[in-house]
Amino acid sequence: MKLLVKVRYDGSAYCGFQAQPNGPTVQGILTEAFSHLFAFPCDVTGCSRTDSGVHALGFCATVVPHEMPPDHWCTIPVSRLHRAVNALLPDDIAVVGAAAVPDSFHPRYDVISKEYEYRILNTPARDPFYRGRAHHVPRPIPVDGEKRMQEAAALFVGENNFSAYMATGSKIKDPVRHVYSAAVERISPNVLVYRVRANGFLYNMVRIMAGTLLECAHGNRDVSAVERSLLSGKREDAGFTAPPEGLYLTDVRYAQEIHWLCE
Amino acid sequence: MKLLVKVRYDGSAYCGFQAQPNGPTVQGILTEAFSHLFAFPCDVTGCSRTDSGVHALGFCATVVPHEMPPDHWCTIPVSRLHRAVNALLPDDIAVVGAAAVPDSFHPRYDVISKEYEYRILNTPARDPFYRGRAHHVPRPIPVDGEKRMQEAAALFVGENNFSAYMATGSKIKDPVRHVYSAAVERISPNVLVYRVRANGFLYNMVRIMAGTLLECAHGNRDVSAVERSLLSGKREDAGFTAPPEGLYLTDVRYAQEIHWLCE
Repeated sequence: MKLLVKVRYDGSAYCGFQAQPNGPTVQGILTEAFSHLFAFPCDVTGCSRTDSGVHALGFCATVVPHEMPPDHWCTIPVSRLHRAVNALLPDDIAVVGAAAVPDSFHPRYDVISKEYEYRILNTPARDPFYRGRAHHVPRPIPVDGEKRMQEAAALFVGENNFSAYMATGSKIKDPVRHVYSAAVERISPNVLVYRVRANGFLYNMVRIMAGTLLECAHGNRDVSAVERSLLSGKREDAGFTAPPEGLYLTDVRYAQEIHWLCE
Repeated sequence: MKLLVKVRYDGSAYCGFQAQPNGPTVQGILTEAFSHLFAFPCDVTGCSRTDSGVHALGFCATVVPHEMPPDHWCTIPVSRLHRAVNALLPDDIAVVGAAAVPDSFHPRYDVISKEYEYRILNTPARDPFYRGRAHHVPRPIPVDGEKRMQEAAALFVGENNFSAYMATGSKIKDPVRHVYSAAVERISPNVLVYRVRANGFLYNMVRIMAGTLLECAHGNRDVSAVERSLLSGKREDAGFTAPPEGLYLTDVRYAQEIHWLCE
């Protein structure tokens, strides 16, 4: 058995999930907290990398203490684990769920789909409560602009070559991804959300999609250009890369059902 | 003419609104920013004091540059003011509206009603996105507990002696306030909001009301006890003082209509 945890984090203060020497990472913080909790060094493996400043509502990671006798690995009931570990984590990271999964389980390879949200705050003045948590667009997005975003988003759905929606210089052999759903919704009078689910994402894919949709919103790019970008595969046929603070990894689905406890 | 501004702030980092020597205050920060913008020392006067850690969505304050020739006081169009001043403010404070009001206007004395919200996060694990922005109650509030909160809140409505809902040691001659509305609403599956509007509030009144409602929610206090507290006026007949991070000053109404610009 392995421990799988669901993690929410405000990524503002972190250099992304993946451990790296340039600054604090979510993986680094989780590894430290779990190693302390279990009193054995732990390996924390995430479902994906996230960029600096990107947030997560439902990030999944396995926690494997190494060198610990196998019958010793979880002396804390899984359903109570969040209390113990959250007391050791900083207030911008929290474990919100835990599950026992088989040893064969892999948090990245076993993913069947992931969902991201890109949040846009559309107000003339910036909002202190959204700082670092949404992309602030001061220029009003009119109703027909929102409609154009919805039309453009719908074009992403299906199995497509998303080469145009990949950061320049990425080394990916197969740029085809299956987008299961992609839609724009106004979740409050001033907040628009682009929500997309796919079997996988290329580097910066959601942020380039969001930038493209915003250009469609303001009429700087034609909705038909999105169709063209999916055919040409050229980065310049897609829009700008929207900033990281609007991006949230919201949900991860696995082939097997996960029985989350303590959510 | 005077300048009236509407301010949103995340109070987490501040010792309340009112300037004081113990630490940074919202008034101090606003005074500095406007004095810099107008190149004349400014007096900033608020509609209320707020405590350390308390937030505001619609705080009102007048800004009066002194020693400035009267025909010189607003060289920036009021509708563009937020752009100029927000560039000088930290990211947890923003001016979201501005209006020109008569010289006779007073931001505190002319208030006819204020509205506060008290936000309660009801999840087993703490949530990084609500840190400092809601009171976290891990113990589940069941549907009947929510109903008891609503019943208790309704008892606050009307003209009552709120002595029991005032911090011990407050020196207030008249503890009678008129509560126009008081209600509990579930704004999302895990967030409850207590919303109250009155002609004025005693010190800690909303936080003691929120603490009392939470004790009713969990059956630690009977709803009928609220009636008793309003008759006895004894602090011990009301509940605990809920922590500041759940409290938001949301709206201020004045006798005269305010023509807000740049909202």
